[in-house]
Amino acid sequence: MKKFVYSFEEGKKELKLLLGGKGANLAEMTNIGLAVPEGFTISTEACIKYYDDGKKIDKDVISQIDEKLIELEKKTGKGFGKAENPLLVSVRSGAAVSMPGMMDTILNLGLNEETVEGLKKLTQNGRFAYDSYRRFIQMFSDVVLEIDKHHFDIIFDNQKRLKNIDNDFDLTEEDLKNIINEYYKIVKNEAHIDFPSDPKEQLYMAINAVFDSWNNQRAKIYRKAHAISDNLGTAVNVQSMVFGNMGSECGTGVAFTRNPSTGESGVFGEFLINAQGEDVVAGIRTPLSISEMKDIMPKVYDEFMKMCEILEVHYRDMQDIEFTIENMKLYVLQTRTGKRTAQAAINIAVDMCNNGVLTKEEALMRVDPIHIDQMLHPNFNLKALEDANLIASGLPASPGAASGRIYFFPEDVVSAKARGEKAILVRQETSPEDIEGMIHAAGILTSRGGMTSHAAVVARGMGKCCVAGCSEVLVNESKKEMKVQGLILKEGDWISLNGSTGKIYEGEIPITEITLTGNFNEILKWADEVRNLGIRTNADTPKDAQNAVDFGAEGIGLCRTEHMFFDESRIYHVREMILAQNVNDRQKALDKLLPYQRDDFEKIFEVMQEKPVTIRLLDPPLHEFLPKEEDDIEKLSKELNIDKHEIMNIVKDLSEFNPMLGHRGVRLAISYPEIYEMQVKAIFEGAVNVYNNKGFMPTVEVMVPLVGLVKEFTLVKELIQKIADEILEANNMMEMVYKIGTMIEIPRAALIAGEIAEEAEFFSFGTNDLTQMALGFSRDDSGKFLKVYKEKHIFEKDPFETIDVKGVGRLVEMATADGKKARSNLKVGICGEQGGDPESIDFFNKVGLDYVSCSPFRVPVARLAAAQAKIKQK
Amino acid sequence: MKKFVYSFEEGKKELKLLLGGKGANLAEMTNIGLAVPEGFTISTEACIKYYDDGKKIDKDVISQIDEKLIELEKKTGKGFGKAENPLLVSVRSGAAVSMPGMMDTILNLGLNEETVEGLKKLTQNGRFAYDSYRRFIQMFSDVVLEIDKHHFDIIFDNQKRLKNIDNDFDLTEEDLKNIINEYYKIVKNEAHIDFPSDPKEQLYMAINAVFDSWNNQRAKIYRKAHAISDNLGTAVNVQSMVFGNMGSECGTGVAFTRNPSTGESGVFGEFLINAQGEDVVAGIRTPLSISEMKDIMPKVYDEFMKMCEILEVHYRDMQDIEFTIENMKLYVLQTRTGKRTAQAAINIAVDMCNNGVLTKEEALMRVDPIHIDQMLHPNFNLKALEDANLIASGLPASPGAASGRIYFFPEDVVSAKARGEKAILVRQETSPEDIEGMIHAAGILTSRGGMTSHAAVVARGMGKCCVAGCSEVLVNESKKEMKVQGLILKEGDWISLNGSTGKIYEGEIPITEITLTGNFNEILKWADEVRNLGIRTNADTPKDAQNAVDFGAEGIGLCRTEHMFFDESRIYHVREMILAQNVNDRQKALDKLLPYQRDDFEKIFEVMQEKPVTIRLLDPPLHEFLPKEEDDIEKLSKELNIDKHEIMNIVKDLSEFNPMLGHRGVRLAISYPEIYEMQVKAIFEGAVNVYNNKGFMPTVEVMVPLVGLVKEFTLVKELIQKIADEILEANNMMEMVYKIGTMIEIPRAALIAGEIAEEAEFFSFGTNDLTQMALGFSRDDSGKFLKVYKEKHIFEKDPFETIDVKGVGRLVEMATADGKKARSNLKVGICGEQGGDPESIDFFNKVGLDYVSCSPFRVPVARLAAAQAKIKQK
Repeated sequence: MKKFVYSFEEGKKELKLLLGGKGANLAEMTNIGLAVPEGFTISTEACIKYYDDGKKIDKDVISQIDEKLIELEKKTGKGFGKAENPLLVSVRSGAAVSMPGMMDTILNLGLNEETVEGLKKLTQNGRFAYDSYRRFIQMFSDVVLEIDKHHFDIIFDNQKRLKNIDNDFDLTEEDLKNIINEYYKIVKNEAHIDFPSDPKEQLYMAINAVFDSWNNQRAKIYRKAHAISDNLGTAVNVQSMVFGNMGSECGTGVAFTRNPSTGESGVFGEFLINAQGEDVVAGIRTPLSISEMKDIMPKVYDEFMKMCEILEVHYRDMQDIEFTIENMKLYVLQTRTGKRTAQAAINIAVDMCNNGVLTKEEALMRVDPIHIDQMLHPNFNLKALEDANLIASGLPASPGAASGRIYFFPEDVVSAKARGEKAILVRQETSPEDIEGMIHAAGILTSRGGMTSHAAVVARGMGKCCVAGCSEVLVNESKKEMKVQGLILKEGDWISLNGSTGKIYEGEIPITEITLTGNFNEILKWADEVRNLGIRTNADTPKDAQNAVDFGAEGIGLCRTEHMFFDESRIYHVREMILAQNVNDRQKALDKLLPYQRDDFEKIFEVMQEKPVTIRLLDPPLHEFLPKEEDDIEKLSKELNIDKHEIMNIVKDLSEFNPMLGHRGVRLAISYPEIYEMQVKAIFEGAVNVYNNKGFMPTVEVMVPLVGLVKEFTLVKELIQKIADEILEANNMMEMVYKIGTMIEIPRAALIAGEIAEEAEFFSFGTNDLTQMALGFSRDDSGKFLKVYKEKHIFEKDPFETIDVKGVGRLVEMATADGKKARSNLKVGICGEQGGDPESIDFFNKVGLDYVSCSPFRVPVARLAAAQAKIKQK
Repeated sequence: MKKFVYSFEEGKKELKLLLGGKGANLAEMTNIGLAVPEGFTISTEACIKYYDDGKKIDKDVISQIDEKLIELEKKTGKGFGKAENPLLVSVRSGAAVSMPGMMDTILNLGLNEETVEGLKKLTQNGRFAYDSYRRFIQMFSDVVLEIDKHHFDIIFDNQKRLKNIDNDFDLTEEDLKNIINEYYKIVKNEAHIDFPSDPKEQLYMAINAVFDSWNNQRAKIYRKAHAISDNLGTAVNVQSMVFGNMGSECGTGVAFTRNPSTGESGVFGEFLINAQGEDVVAGIRTPLSISEMKDIMPKVYDEFMKMCEILEVHYRDMQDIEFTIENMKLYVLQTRTGKRTAQAAINIAVDMCNNGVLTKEEALMRVDPIHIDQMLHPNFNLKALEDANLIASGLPASPGAASGRIYFFPEDVVSAKARGEKAILVRQETSPEDIEGMIHAAGILTSRGGMTSHAAVVARGMGKCCVAGCSEVLVNESKKEMKVQGLILKEGDWISLNGSTGKIYEGEIPITEITLTGNFNEILKWADEVRNLGIRTNADTPKDAQNAVDFGAEGIGLCRTEHMFFDESRIYHVREMILAQNVNDRQKALDKLLPYQRDDFEKIFEVMQEKPVTIRLLDPPLHEFLPKEEDDIEKLSKELNIDKHEIMNIVKDLSEFNPMLGHRGVRLAISYPEIYEMQVKAIFEGAVNVYNNKGFMPTVEVMVPLVGLVKEFTLVKELIQKIADEILEANNMMEMVYKIGTMIEIPRAALIAGEIAEEAEFFSFGTNDLTQMALGFSRDDSGKFLKVYKEKHIFEKDPFETIDVKGVGRLVEMATADGKKARSNLKVGICGEQGGDPESIDFFNKVGLDYVSCSPFRVPVARLAAAQAKIKQK
């Protein structure tokens, strides 16, 4: 006779296909010596036979189940359907692959008019016994008899109304008996049978229901969507129930094998004597700490400690355990990997590795990159957050938490800070003139702009909390107030921002600052040992650069030169340059800018020393540097002594329908080569100064933005080479190595990457622009429709945060392959926002990029993610 | 002894590698019995040996040349270096592949102090003889002695200034002798030799120079760039000179074997007795028609007629022949395929095919698609054009020629037309409100906007001449004047536009109207027999559709639905719909639009009958339909009874930074499904009406624009299917077949085409937008920098006119392959501007598209180009 039914002792985790995931796992726990409540599994083969036989349980299967039931009675010392010490069981489905839609669980099967009385006697708790029975009838009627739940809810609610009570717990045994009687009537009316009182009948009906649920509509759709075969069948697990509320020798609790907040070793948890799981949930009695068990039940305590150790060693991770003590016997009901804080995750991983439980690679995989990010930014106190009033959600533009009084103008933020207040800067959108206010703000909130808006980029650079593009918030700057969902907040009112989630709360929420431990650096050191991918940073200032180096950046992957142009002392000359009517005047203005730029580069080189610094030449369209408001134009007109209308004409002439696709990047250099000439001079004269003053040569990589055609690049490359070589030669620095490369940010550049690589020494993917153009999404405008897209699940992930693998990713992969084929030592990196996103880093590692570059505060995240990518790919 | 030197009789066209292209061709002409001036070719092997021997001409080569020279003297009856009847020769290089940079030609080699006197006697023309000698010295000094031309120019100019004359022809024999004496001095000073007087010495120096020029810098660079081997060597052709100015039995002329204006057969040309080529050019004497030769030199005439016939038959095309008669002996100096008008090209091709000279495929290849285009549009009278004053150049937006008085407002055009004037509408840019004026204008000129601006698209649809985006023209509409290059033109002044070239002329130029001949239709009929590619049209109105069908369109590939929205009677409801604050109000406005749209489609279906009609659902962003000026907003505010400021707020809210990448196309349908719902209803209700009234079922293809994600498409597809099936079912038309497909115009769509093809039944490449996004060029803005790009040769072709094969083309090719792999019967077309461009059509045919769609007036061009693409690909 073929074997269809297996006691837990007979199984093992390798038999998943035969016993289902749950069955194999129960068997595994049993066999490593854990006290799992006894039971058996009816195999998937029995289910297949059930269908082969036209939905009939085979008689061999029945006889084996009956056998195992007798065995179970023996092991537990209880009797199935026996009033004095009734054996109650749970029945659960369990396919090889977990699958929503199938019948889930029936508890307390075996209860009837007699056994419920037996349970009452054993537990000394009639209310509990009859409530268990009521629940069993309800559950069984729902999933086995398929009676609409609604009927039962009405009766239950009626009874509560009749007694005028709110809490289910206040129903008496009598009330419950009344309810049960009403339930019987429902079953009779709806299913046209008496509720089955024979436990065996209950059991077989339940098994049938599990088998049938394998082919219900939801399960079939799920299998189709996930390409799971319809022929696998499901197993059925029958397990004896245990009770922690049968007296003072019983109890129940939950525990972690370590402290989930700090990761410190030592069992951490709580339990209740003579109680059931729901008593813990109800919170009426105060639970005891696990350590108190030592005095109350020393033997059980020792057993429990041993169990925790076994579990942690076996599963090689901190476990979150549910247990029950029935008459001094300890049972584990469930064990799973425990949730933990960022700090705990890091400490546990390092500790377990140091103890030899995990290899370094395994330890690295145990830390979520998000944990690393959380460690670098303050968070709200979690308890306080529970009561906070969420008022709106925007884009999580720069992580961290901030609480403060709102101010609508940068200068008001500055004076509030001076008064010792915490200030939040609230603006429709920020612009370079707001920088002072941003520096002094505890956090920044904007109602417009996306993940790469001015506010977002600058805040991330500063490591400051920012929520951007929250369109629900209406900012009225002139009135100094903001409106959100009918609520009006005025200057000085408190709000709290979570830049990691984009959530905005009313009022103040206390903040928890976290200190970095040695383990934080340890895990990142291990990551560095493992990863192939280089980690650079996007930094435009010496301060950002220093931050990034402290966080482990190996170079600058993107130094934007235009941010320097916005500085107050320079913008005047920049505007003078733009408004110049001829090359001579433009050259004069550029000559004035040169010393500033040279100084910028010098200071960055000094920080970065010999680490590579990739400098992107001017990128944005010129109109971005000109004032837009009439007042500002008038002011500029006076400063430059140019007629106001002439300036307005130039502003109008430079304006573009689609600036994203307009006159910027290398296109500027083709029209006005003198701008790039000045910048290249500044770079190399800066390098000369550093060499003369500090004695080392910077590693310079000059990057040309927005190249789409080979000839655009070669023209600019010749210009760069000429100037660089002249300066280096004149200063006896011909041995200084520099590279000239290009951004790949226009789809066409990716498509002709092979040809470009013959000329360029490095590529850096500008995935921000590449995503905008490949998807045809303007970041500045897409907010309006992307919200609906997310609601309708057209997008699962924001393509500006995580690379769109099928579209943009295909371009990145093609361009990398074509580029490296044309030039084997081509250096390929990415400097878009996605450079700090773990999922994207995994992709970049897979397609063979040499490095990623991200904002300074993302560098530690990227180091870990790069290591994990390498490990996963093995 | 190896043979190194070949007389023309010894060669043939197959010996190109040995004799060079020119040598092989001279041999070919000689051998088909044409009277080519005698000569010989020194082979490329002689050149290779020259280099092998360290740049020395081998003695075997020398002895063979000397032999051939004696032969040449015998054949011509002239003597090399003999004063009485001097043999003069030309020396020309001739590699297997034509190559710029090499030594070109030396004429009249053999002249010296004695032979020049002989030439004078023979020609009775001392001025000619000495001028020939002067030219020979100059040419020889330049290419053989490498003396800077500049020296000779100074002397020549000085002599002219001395005599106070302007025209070279007015220099006397004496003057020329003076010049020659000065030339001798230059040679002595610069080359440190006396000018060689020995013809043999001249010849060998010339041959040496040709051999040396094989390895000069320019030739080497050219070979490298074109991957031509450095080891091929060049041949040298030595050919006797003939003279048409040695008396009344001599002459010279040019002739076509047919009439190059009409293509009629019969030799067509002119000649001069006792003259030389340059006399014809100088235009002092009036030439005779070829038919007059019959009386003057009947024997030569017969010979010439025979020669023309031989040439046309041998080269199988109309020839353009240069000939000289020396003492009643006819020589052909050059023959080449003759340039012809559009009409002639078509007539010649059809005629030669009907006569069995050409196959149909060959005849098709003989017509340039540009010719077809020219046949469809009026052209300027060519003679008149020579004197016209070109004042500016813009984009050739819609072909044809137009002359008329300028008007700056559409209403002024309308009244001018009513007065019987020809009017040209001049605007900064046109908008849908200008349509009336555009209809009545003879031509349209705009100072802004590109090849796909409103003016360009509408004009092409109407087949009306248009020059767009001419930034040199400053239009001042309020002053009713335009400024161009300092010239001010006012309302009522005449200008002339060439929409095929983009050129703008001052004043009136007469126009030649061409009538289509039967041969025009014949050649297109043949094209239809040959081509695989289907030809559809872009048409939004019944009139355009009818035009296109008359021109041979097989369907509509793009029917834009938004143009219908701009109509005066509808724009009100469109604006009502956009300004609606909730779905209900929007639905009400849409309900009012429905009958209009249904009527539009009905009328188009009636024209197209059962030919496929691809209808693109609404594409542009909603803000395009709203007024921008305060006046118009105020008017709308009154009409709709909505507060002005509210409308202004909505206009502001809908405005976008980059509308190109904004909320439009399918994205609108995701946000406001009710808009597409109305359109789909209109389409299928229209189809039902046509079926009920006319008895046929239209072939409808519904096209979703701007898809970048599969789910965008599937959501809209489900909506279309639901509505279509409901309507068809309710009307018993379930057998009507319709297709649902998508534009491929976002780079990402091309990258995931395989996935999209699983859902879409057809693709249509929107190469306008695809080019904008793949190249990152906003058409509206790129004018500013593309001009510099063309100047610096960064672009050779405008990527919006001719497909950018390496970039956009790669996407088209990938998407077509991936799409057809996923769905083998996927229909793939293109409906961008490039659908009517022959070079692009060649590419689309190659990558396997099913059809191209272009504006009605381009349909004939596309038919021919498609046939040529097929033939070329064989």
